[in-house]
Amino acid sequence: MSSYVITGASRGIGLELTKQLLELPVTQVAKVFALTRSRPSNSLNQLIADNSDRLFSVIASVDNATDLKRAAADVKARLGEHGGLDVLVNNAGITAFSPGGTRNLTAEQLTQVLNTNVTGVHLVTMAFLPLLEAGKGKKVISMSSTLGAISWAQKFKLSPTPAYKISKAALNMLNTQYALDYADAGFTFLLVSPGWLTTDLGGEGADFPVDVGVQDVIRIILDSTPAQNGKFLNIHVPGQEDAWGSYDGKEISW
Amino acid sequence: MSSYVITGASRGIGLELTKQLLELPVTQVAKVFALTRSRPSNSLNQLIADNSDRLFSVIASVDNATDLKRAAADVKARLGEHGGLDVLVNNAGITAFSPGGTRNLTAEQLTQVLNTNVTGVHLVTMAFLPLLEAGKGKKVISMSSTLGAISWAQKFKLSPTPAYKISKAALNMLNTQYALDYADAGFTFLLVSPGWLTTDLGGEGADFPVDVGVQDVIRIILDSTPAQNGKFLNIHVPGQEDAWGSYDGKEISW
Ligand SMILES: NC(=O)c1ccc[n+]([C@@H]2O[C@H](COP(=O)([O-])OP(=O)(O)OC[C@H]3O[C@@H](n4cnc5c(N)ncnc54)[C@H](OP(=O)(O)O)[C@@H]3O)[C@@H](O)[C@H]2O)c1
Ligand SMILES: NC(=O)c1ccc[n+]([C@@H]2O[C@H](COP(=O)([O-])OP(=O)(O)OC[C@H]3O[C@@H](n4cnc5c(N)ncnc54)[C@H](OP(=O)(O)O)[C@@H]3O)[C@@H](O)[C@H]2O)c1
Repeated sequence: MSSYVITGASRGIGLELTKQLLELPVTQVAKVFALTRSRPSNSLNQLIADNSDRLFSVIASVDNATDLKRAAADVKARLGEHGGLDVLVNNAGITAFSPGGTRNLTAEQLTQVLNTNVTGVHLVTMAFLPLLEAGKGKKVISMSSTLGAISWAQKFKLSPTPAYKISKAALNMLNTQYALDYADAGFTFLLVSPGWLTTDLGGEGADFPVDVGVQDVIRIILDSTPAQNGKFLNIHVPGQEDAWGSYDGKEISW
Repeated sequence: MSSYVITGASRGIGLELTKQLLELPVTQVAKVFALTRSRPSNSLNQLIADNSDRLFSVIASVDNATDLKRAAADVKARLGEHGGLDVLVNNAGITAFSPGGTRNLTAEQLTQVLNTNVTGVHLVTMAFLPLLEAGKGKKVISMSSTLGAISWAQKFKLSPTPAYKISKAALNMLNTQYALDYADAGFTFLLVSPGWLTTDLGGEGADFPVDVGVQDVIRIILDSTPAQNGKFLNIHVPGQEDAWGSYDGKEISW
């Protein structure tokens, strides 16, 4: 009987995550709050129509503290007697392209990507922490990326996304700080790299369709315990352990 | 016969670095450009008065691209026939305190620290890259910190500076991106952790007086070659290899 908040639920990984969570029995997934920056997409609206008893739309931009305060109050009211939030998935994120190298990354791009991918995750986490403290699951899952692992940087040299890489490295440290702060309170702050997936952000040439990666992200979320607090996990796709993305389900080194 | 640009030269590590560089013979250190956000401090002004043949004041805030463009043009003009810049030291930086944990870090604090410590370093680097490309040294040294190493986070749990830690982790990835981009051009993009030093930022309880750490930072700068490109180095203080800060002069893991 767990409740979930998922940011960036209108499309891509967030939408698929919402969809697959709702395929689980209500005894496992009681309520899902789909946060979107603006009105839900048609796909999300369809999903809401089909699951009106346990899927709820909440509108909030992750970089707007006022939006998020209202969103948290809204979620709190709709959680009702259940009384707490179990799982927060910080999924919303953006990238920026800098063809020709880091020197072509504008300060505006870098600021915007840091604002959404780092400060946004911090704002969302702050807004929902009181509800998570009242919940049983106490899980905060943040979508990071192997592109944010400095130890993998040589491998991803050709991806012209320095702002994205910088923001995910920063996100990894943000999550680490929360994990240390909330270890004694029984929280699980977990970084997940969902694999290179076909979405607007991932593009057409990705390694897997979005459902493949999301399926394993859900396994990771469900299996996670406080023993994983602070870790950075890759998805596991059987047979793809030795692929470029090392999809072995293991910890990713920073 | 090398030329240096040092940001944040009015006080702390930047001032001491400027001072110690000027103690080296002119055959080694030809010109030092001391960048400061506002008018030079009295200490820096005194140093300029004593070394007016090779120490020059340039005013620019590291978060102001227009300032930096003017600063680079100014440095270029004053480099004269020497024709290029050899070493850029990205030293300017700020911290922010969040007593009581990460949840008390405001979005404004986080944004400001990222802006100075990450975007600022990027802006300064972009501004001086053309001059560095024309120079022989091709060294860009950025002051990072073991506080920015995720692998050290448990150790520094009690330091209430999440924004600073996040910013230095992000800086480490920024430097990594530049190092990969400019490896073939013979550059050395190097991250240095100068040790915990007594400055306004480091505070009174630091491990060493500022001159001790800076002395080894200078050794690292002088000794560095393209073989160190992309590395993250600790200072070496003999006898302090097993201290809390592991001052062994070795690479710091991310
Ligand atoms: N796809 C991959 O290969 C891959 C790999 C590793 C990690 N990831 C991570 O997984 C997450 C989801 O990626 P994706 O591929 O699903 O991306 P996507 O298809 O581009 O979707 C991104 C989602 O984030 C939302 N969003 C962006 N900025 C927002 C803001 N300020 N406020 C609220 N929502 C905002 C978007 O909302 P709008 O619809 O309103 O724009 C959208 O729903 C990201 O954190 C990404 O970094 C993706
Ligand atoms: N002290 C330590 O223990 C320690 C340890 C590890 C790393 N570091 C790093 O070493 C560097 C220097 O630290 P410090 O201890 O010398 O700090 P500090 O004494 O506080 O001095 C910081 C310097 O940075 C300048 N600065 C800040 N924001 C600026 C901006 N927007 N534009 C231009 N200049 C700006 C300041 O200028 P104003 O005088 O105008 O404010 C000042 O000169 C920092 O990057 C720091 O993170 C220090």
